[in-house]
Amino acid sequence: MAVIAVDMDDVVADALGEHLRRYNEMFGTTIERTHLNGKPLRHIIPAEHRQAAHDLLHQHSFFEQLHVLPGAQEVLHELSRTHEVFFASAAMEVPCSFAAKFDWLHKHFAFIPPSNWVFCGDKHILAADYLIDDNARHFQKFRGTGILFDAPYNQHVTGYERVHNWFEVRDYFAKTSCPQP
Amino acid sequence: MAVIAVDMDDVVADALGEHLRRYNEMFGTTIERTHLNGKPLRHIIPAEHRQAAHDLLHQHSFFEQLHVLPGAQEVLHELSRTHEVFFASAAMEVPCSFAAKFDWLHKHFAFIPPSNWVFCGDKHILAADYLIDDNARHFQKFRGTGILFDAPYNQHVTGYERVHNWFEVRDYFAKTSCPQP
Repeated sequence: MAVIAVDMDDVVADALGEHLRRYNEMFGTTIERTHLNGKPLRHIIPAEHRQAAHDLLHQHSFFEQLHVLPGAQEVLHELSRTHEVFFASAAMEVPCSFAAKFDWLHKHFAFIPPSNWVFCGDKHILAADYLIDDNARHFQKFRGTGILFDAPYNQHVTGYERVHNWFEVRDYFAKTSCPQP
Repeated sequence: MAVIAVDMDDVVADALGEHLRRYNEMFGTTIERTHLNGKPLRHIIPAEHRQAAHDLLHQHSFFEQLHVLPGAQEVLHELSRTHEVFFASAAMEVPCSFAAKFDWLHKHFAFIPPSNWVFCGDKHILAADYLIDDNARHFQKFRGTGILFDAPYNQHVTGYERVHNWFEVRDYFAKTSCPQP
């Protein structure tokens, strides 16, 4: 049994999709995930829109309405049978998100108990064997194995195992549990 | 340099003092810390008062008004110069406390950055060398060294180093850093 820590935004929750939706609605644009091409949204929009784009993430309703990424519930439910799964969100960066993130996990991932939910800052404080995250900065001092969850803005990041979706996470742990001779 | 995780309630924040104050005010009693004698409050009050006593902890204002325990700021400020200090609160048990706990840390312990604040459930997820906590259940699967912060209700707990106040914490780490031959 391994301890697997799982980020929330853009790993189980479609934060980027919601961010693009709100940004496009606000500015009448049609930016899609594929337009980011290895960059964060703030780098491809006019400088005068950056503060508004940032403020969208601090709206209380933002985290309430995020869609679950495909396969996240199914695969984490499977993994939780044989591993200890924790959610670990860098929520201290967006303190107004605490309640919404708690409610969101309760709504979509009630099979992982709240005792295994962590709102933190630097994730190297986690004593996990694996950390699945879209942001590689959390791997730098992390003592376990970082697994990079693919996202448009991390396309140029190298040095870590990359998974493109939850079905690849399932495959990763199937292989890890049963290594071939 | 060690990683030191520090609980909030009854380690840096006088939650018990505030709980007794509110309980006494509600029921016209005069219960003091010394009356607990190794038991939690709920075990020494009439059964019909237990729900009300529990509900006091879930009032949003409860965590806003806690006093800082003597020496906590001074000693943690010292320790943070040579060690990596994290706050780790089992806040998932009282989700309504998130915002108040965040604001309280910001008010009283701003010298520890929010990147080192953790709201969690089970604390064995912490990759810390030391955990200072009044609740020994968090030490059971913790990979580091548990340091029990003395409290009226943990008088009968044995098996861990016990510190009675923050000045003893200072002494503990002074000795740990400079072991005698």
